[in-house]
Amino acid sequence: MRTMWLLLLWGVALPVFAGEGKWTPQQVLELDPAWLKAQGLKLPPQKLWDPKRGTGLLAGAVNVGGCSGAFISSSGLVITNHHCVFSIVQEHSSPQRDLISQGFLATSREAELPGKGARILVPRAFTDVTKEVLAAVPAGADDLARFKAIERLQKELVAGCEKRPATRCQVASFDGGSQYVLVDSVELADVRLVYAPPRAVGEFGGEEDNWMWPRHTGDFAIVRAYTAPDGSAAAYSEKNVPHKAEFFFPLAPQGIKPGEFVMVLGYPGTSFRALLAEEMADRQARYYPRVIDFYGESIRVLEEEGAKDAAGKIAVASTLKGLHNRAKNASGQIAGLERGRIVEKQREAEATVVRWAEKNRAHAGALRAREELLSGLKEEARTWEREFLLGNLRAGARGVSMAATLGQLARERVKPDMEREPEFMERELVRLKDQFEREQKNLFVPAEKRLLLAFVRRAQALGPGERIASVDKHFGPSFSEKAVAAKAEAMYGATKVLTLQERMAMFQESEAQLQARQDPLLAFGLDLATELTALDEVKDRREGARRRLRPEWRRAVLAHAGKPVAPDANGTLRVTFAKVQGYSPRDGVFYTPQTTLSGVLAKHTDAEPFDVPDKVLASAKAKRFGPWADAALKDVPVDFLADADTTGGNSGSPTVNGKGELVGVNFDRVWENVANDFGYNPDVARNVNVDVRYVLWMLDQVENAEGLLRELGVRKGPPGTGESR
Amino acid sequence: MRTMWLLLLWGVALPVFAGEGKWTPQQVLELDPAWLKAQGLKLPPQKLWDPKRGTGLLAGAVNVGGCSGAFISSSGLVITNHHCVFSIVQEHSSPQRDLISQGFLATSREAELPGKGARILVPRAFTDVTKEVLAAVPAGADDLARFKAIERLQKELVAGCEKRPATRCQVASFDGGSQYVLVDSVELADVRLVYAPPRAVGEFGGEEDNWMWPRHTGDFAIVRAYTAPDGSAAAYSEKNVPHKAEFFFPLAPQGIKPGEFVMVLGYPGTSFRALLAEEMADRQARYYPRVIDFYGESIRVLEEEGAKDAAGKIAVASTLKGLHNRAKNASGQIAGLERGRIVEKQREAEATVVRWAEKNRAHAGALRAREELLSGLKEEARTWEREFLLGNLRAGARGVSMAATLGQLARERVKPDMEREPEFMERELVRLKDQFEREQKNLFVPAEKRLLLAFVRRAQALGPGERIASVDKHFGPSFSEKAVAAKAEAMYGATKVLTLQERMAMFQESEAQLQARQDPLLAFGLDLATELTALDEVKDRREGARRRLRPEWRRAVLAHAGKPVAPDANGTLRVTFAKVQGYSPRDGVFYTPQTTLSGVLAKHTDAEPFDVPDKVLASAKAKRFGPWADAALKDVPVDFLADADTTGGNSGSPTVNGKGELVGVNFDRVWENVANDFGYNPDVARNVNVDVRYVLWMLDQVENAEGLLRELGVRKGPPGTGESR
Repeated sequence: MRTMWLLLLWGVALPVFAGEGKWTPQQVLELDPAWLKAQGLKLPPQKLWDPKRGTGLLAGAVNVGGCSGAFISSSGLVITNHHCVFSIVQEHSSPQRDLISQGFLATSREAELPGKGARILVPRAFTDVTKEVLAAVPAGADDLARFKAIERLQKELVAGCEKRPATRCQVASFDGGSQYVLVDSVELADVRLVYAPPRAVGEFGGEEDNWMWPRHTGDFAIVRAYTAPDGSAAAYSEKNVPHKAEFFFPLAPQGIKPGEFVMVLGYPGTSFRALLAEEMADRQARYYPRVIDFYGESIRVLEEEGAKDAAGKIAVASTLKGLHNRAKNASGQIAGLERGRIVEKQREAEATVVRWAEKNRAHAGALRAREELLSGLKEEARTWEREFLLGNLRAGARGVSMAATLGQLARERVKPDMEREPEFMERELVRLKDQFEREQKNLFVPAEKRLLLAFVRRAQALGPGERIASVDKHFGPSFSEKAVAAKAEAMYGATKVLTLQERMAMFQESEAQLQARQDPLLAFGLDLATELTALDEVKDRREGARRRLRPEWRRAVLAHAGKPVAPDANGTLRVTFAKVQGYSPRDGVFYTPQTTLSGVLAKHTDAEPFDVPDKVLASAKAKRFGPWADAALKDVPVDFLADADTTGGNSGSPTVNGKGELVGVNFDRVWENVANDFGYNPDVARNVNVDVRYVLWMLDQVENAEGLLRELGVRKGPPGTGESR
Repeated sequence: MRTMWLLLLWGVALPVFAGEGKWTPQQVLELDPAWLKAQGLKLPPQKLWDPKRGTGLLAGAVNVGGCSGAFISSSGLVITNHHCVFSIVQEHSSPQRDLISQGFLATSREAELPGKGARILVPRAFTDVTKEVLAAVPAGADDLARFKAIERLQKELVAGCEKRPATRCQVASFDGGSQYVLVDSVELADVRLVYAPPRAVGEFGGEEDNWMWPRHTGDFAIVRAYTAPDGSAAAYSEKNVPHKAEFFFPLAPQGIKPGEFVMVLGYPGTSFRALLAEEMADRQARYYPRVIDFYGESIRVLEEEGAKDAAGKIAVASTLKGLHNRAKNASGQIAGLERGRIVEKQREAEATVVRWAEKNRAHAGALRAREELLSGLKEEARTWEREFLLGNLRAGARGVSMAATLGQLARERVKPDMEREPEFMERELVRLKDQFEREQKNLFVPAEKRLLLAFVRRAQALGPGERIASVDKHFGPSFSEKAVAAKAEAMYGATKVLTLQERMAMFQESEAQLQARQDPLLAFGLDLATELTALDEVKDRREGARRRLRPEWRRAVLAHAGKPVAPDANGTLRVTFAKVQGYSPRDGVFYTPQTTLSGVLAKHTDAEPFDVPDKVLASAKAKRFGPWADAALKDVPVDFLADADTTGGNSGSPTVNGKGELVGVNFDRVWENVANDFGYNPDVARNVNVDVRYVLWMLDQVENAEGLLRELGVRKGPPGTGESR
């Protein structure tokens, strides 16, 4: 009887919009199976996740170096985005063998190309450690001590977990510290490239089409994970064998149709839906506009300086791409927050919870917690501009940011590993060092000097309550373009931070050694480091407060909801349930949910970013569709839209049908959906996927990858099925 | 029996695409009535046109100074586009009473504003004069004599026709001279402004949205024609009374839905579908690219010079607008010709006719005529660049073009009226003089000098077979920037052509008087005039040949078609049958056929060209829709698309439903449909209309134009029917 009643309740208490919610594996089992079935799930939810074993089909979705990916065969084949494994393509490219432009297909296992530093994480276990984490906080601890105790315990749990060989662990915090989960993953370190399309397919449309629809990008690639012959994870060795994947998603050669159900699985990075309305409003009104302003200034400087010098233009290209992406994202957030009335809706939802809690004594603490969060926000506003500048050093002069990091590193390294700031712990230093090395190709001194000038101008304009002492010390308290430019000239003239060998030496040096160099940029960096460290402590204290307050507020929100609420993205495994469908970006326009090969041809200009490779052009123009044309479209589908609830980190996520078969590879969201991170707007919440039939058409009709298709269990299409008008 | 068979033939021989064809009134009666009924025509075709009287409902569509318009009441109210009667608004605007920005509503008949020079032509009779025209050509006449004889007879027919008071006549040539029709129209010369929306409504979106969809422009205005108390056409007088319109289109307050039938009536100017494929190819490959090149250069000059000087910027604004429009149109023609494969299709169609005619001795002459047309095209190519330059003087320095016109005028005026070039006949001189006066506000000397320089540079680069002698004489045979700039400087320094009073005096002067002025720009103009006159003769001779050849070729084409074929547009009354529908501009995108008030709000930026007037904003934001919301859209429709076959001249055309009620006002085509002038592409052939419900919403909910609504037979909506979210 009680069960019946509960089921009835579920019937009305389910998510309003099917697409909303990045569900944890555990939550999938808490959703109504009948509802899931009605949406289109053809598998029993228990197939997706076995809570006893802590694994299931969902674990066929893996983490590929910050992206997502999916096993698509039992012998270790993984599909992900082209841009997620681009570094392997790059590593093996040379002017003589230009894999970037031509793409790569391994015609045998021996020909597969190992990727330096490429790693695949396969989830092994999820353990709730909330009790341990909370118990670690000593009674009477202040907010800083609270934060430090939690951080310390997290480090210990990770260290303990990573004692097993080839293991990578993290303690993930859910819902602002309401729950802590230890995620234990196997780290497969022998990853080899099997197939990558030409860059002009994988990045077709480039920056111009980024975030956009209609899209015609084949952003996919296939790698294979290898293990030692005994099946254990191991570094690259000739003796290694393909990884045996317990769970994988077979390809669905029939593809998918508009209106059909799909699931998108993967590792979404961060979202902000649990923020208070005022915290969101703050981002809308201050943070994103300042990003556009500050990053925009850096963009102008890099473009202007790049235009004066061909080598400089190449050097700043990658930085520019990143800055553009961030600035474009920020504009999208502002537009989407407004369009979706997201802050207003959160304000209304919050008001409802407040009224409810006011009548409910058990939640009196939640109201107090909310008030304290709000006053914390006001407090932060006093030094907001200073912290924005210090927090975005990397968007300015790279030399300054690296000098400051060298200073921090030298001071952190003398501490025991467990007491360092997490980003300076031994397990991170390989990556940091690698980054310091790679940075060399991005450096362009004329731009550096102007970016330093811009940073100092901003710093010197700060109010008396938020001065940056190191700027005052090295550049004086007020701005004079001439004086600061001369100083920047002198700093960059004398510094060795921009010299690769010297910088890599500095990476190993103590603070005393760094000081002894009497390098003016390094001296500025060391002083900045002092301020950054102090700021870290301020931030840790604030975060300690939030970890105390937010869970209390969220408890009321969840209790009031009375149904499963998907927690914010935090880089852990999630699944979202969706439908293939288009949307209206504006009055008078409807974006249909599928694009086709004809659209690729229509965009072809023979010039980047719309330069379709000859072999693709030949097959497409001759309409050699093979069996991969869609009956309704009468053409090979290229990309499709669904209303899945994705964010950064979902790049490369498998998009599967109700039977768990792969129908696409997620690679982007649309522009109108960027503010999705703050709230789900069903009118425009659309993710962008490569259609599996485009993948298969490429492998079959363009590449003749017979062996690979056989391994994927797909019959190669008959040759010469082309028709011409 | 024979009739039966004919009807059956009609059944299969009707136009392939419902929307294709700008039908003449006579042709409407030749189309199958059953087919018209099936399309959605609810009236008997005889209601549209009575061949005995030579008039009918179609004559409710009138010519409004080169635009189209329609009677919408029996008491002379005419609806047309805002931009078609903008000069009346402008005439009555002052800084104290800014009708341009605020719009205008006459609250009584006395308050209606007479428009200087505004004219409405109401068709009265169409007479086939083909026999007379052809009989006028003397036996054995060469091509020039042929042309001159035809031109002469046309002038005589017009002069005879215009002997009736308040009459305007033209002899229209159909299908390249296959048929000649004398069009006799009543000229209503007392036209008064009744309602114009604010310019920000009538031109909402400005240049940015021009040719574009989605569109949110309220490009409509209402005027009233007046006659003398006895009903005869007369110049403005206080005693005049509203014109009694025999035919008019009552408004359809229920509007129109996607998929429904509409007719668009009006006076389309020019189209080129009867050209040979090679003639089209020539325009695609040479003419339009040169327009983009030449007009593009003028645009750059005007923009650069305008940027240096605020007054200059205002002066060149109108010229720039025209040049931009022409250049944008040219790009659209090129893109559309390619997209619609129009030349290829014409080539294929032509080849079919050629094969058919080759087997049919009766059409042997058609094949010879086609060959001769093709060799004429080759011949023209030799001096094509020279003629392009001389033919586009107006897109360059206005001083040069006016000086040349003054030269031509002086030489033509000494001839008897009937022997002049048509544009210099007495009936045209008022207009020309007016234009010479109005030109003053567009003149900007620094831009003039650079445009002259650009013209001379092009002229001096011409090959030996196509030199412009007057340029060689005044600027020397080869280009030197310094020398030409100095010469331009001197010419503009000394000339009086740019001085209004002097120029208007020159307008009356003889050639000797002009020579005596020793004005260097005028001297150049007089020499240019000599070349222009010589070129006119060359062109007349060519046209004489075409008038001899094209009808022969077209006879074969029409005989082969075996069904009515709508002739090319030639400024005479036409009707096109269409359906309201959207289209796909490219893969992944569908343009829905209607836009709404919400879309107007979404485009509103508070700045031109998207600055919605406050009174409109207020009603729209408050959702005071009155009875004008569409049930399906739940919003007031603003603009809609149909697949009508329109072109320039159709601006202001009434768009009416199957019962002959007004559902919209045509004002544009979409960008993808510009090459429609060469061939109808049903995928993208869309015209853009203001929805009658937007007109009514403006009059009712924004302007409270109760009297006007009453006269239109429309009930004012209840006030305060707004709803807010």
